[in-house]
Amino acid sequence: MSGLFITMEGTDGSGKTTQIKLLSDYLEKAGYDVVCTREPGGTKIGEKIRNILIDAENKNMNDITEMFLYSAARAQLVKEVIIPKMNGGGIVISDRFVDSSIVYQGIAREIGEKEVKSVNKYAVGNLLPDITFLLELDFEKGIERKRQQSKLDRIEGENLYFHKKVFYGYKKIASKNSQRIKVIDASLSENEIHKIIVENVNSLINGRSF
Amino acid sequence: MSGLFITMEGTDGSGKTTQIKLLSDYLEKAGYDVVCTREPGGTKIGEKIRNILIDAENKNMNDITEMFLYSAARAQLVKEVIIPKMNGGGIVISDRFVDSSIVYQGIAREIGEKEVKSVNKYAVGNLLPDITFLLELDFEKGIERKRQQSKLDRIEGENLYFHKKVFYGYKKIASKNSQRIKVIDASLSENEIHKIIVENVNSLINGRSF
Repeated sequence: MSGLFITMEGTDGSGKTTQIKLLSDYLEKAGYDVVCTREPGGTKIGEKIRNILIDAENKNMNDITEMFLYSAARAQLVKEVIIPKMNGGGIVISDRFVDSSIVYQGIAREIGEKEVKSVNKYAVGNLLPDITFLLELDFEKGIERKRQQSKLDRIEGENLYFHKKVFYGYKKIASKNSQRIKVIDASLSENEIHKIIVENVNSLINGRSF
Repeated sequence: MSGLFITMEGTDGSGKTTQIKLLSDYLEKAGYDVVCTREPGGTKIGEKIRNILIDAENKNMNDITEMFLYSAARAQLVKEVIIPKMNGGGIVISDRFVDSSIVYQGIAREIGEKEVKSVNKYAVGNLLPDITFLLELDFEKGIERKRQQSKLDRIEGENLYFHKKVFYGYKKIASKNSQRIKVIDASLSENEIHKIIVENVNSLINGRSF
């Protein structure tokens, strides 16, 4: 595959959406063919799965059911959007990918990192992001930001202990994958963060003569 | 677990629904605590997943997505319905279970039997039906029956070659699990089939002094 696959990770409210928009505008202006997507969702079928996942009514959802639903949406996204775009030499920017499942279901729900990875292998094959930005924000601040914006969904509505496990889960996988995952302090200004992201992406593009 | 877990398998149109109703009425009259369920579905979350799976609009669904959605609905059903009922000493009769996934996704979609089993392990743990009835019907007849009854759903609307693979897939797993899976000729009369099922269930109940 000749394209570039960029993912944005972080707790809810860490500013992923804003940064994806800024990066995508920047890359499009530079002449690249860019598609932005999000997980769970990003396809017609995936968005239907998303509705089940975030619906606060489904609060008795089994953790394993949750893991499978994320994997289902991801499998559809990889096949329908990511692989075709990358084969065409485009750039895919995704709001969350497998790292989210490893952190949220594997670590925070305690299903196990190894287990979540082995299940997700069926969804993603050997596909891995070329680079991942982790917007690191204190978990209490993140949820507070979200609460001010809108009603919390099923995942956002989890207790603080859950969000704390997510926060430390991200730290753990970032240190395990320090080559790929760039940790950025999400309390920096939008422009500062954008600048760091652009520098990293450009250096990756230049290095690969993309 | 002290309860009894009975599953009904077979191609679409093989008469599973009718036989489940007859068996359930029989067992309730005999004084047992019975719950009937179906896959995919059987729980509030599972029925939402079912809607995505059978919707003929979702015809571009990735096979892996399909496998994960069935597994997701199943995980919810096992935790929310089957395990609690069995722990309470009841009888669960399910229209389809893991055997369906092995046949439809593993064999007919060609994901692989081993692969589907390993994914489903997360959904069912060590739970296996005590007895499974496979209503075996010529695949052309089954689809013809369904076509006369109603508009075909996404799975029923697959081509004849797919339904043929399902037919022979069932034969294969039945011969591999001949102790558990009882094959019944679905062209027999409703009463004849019911009688065979009741004899098998009674002999199982008596043997276990259930």
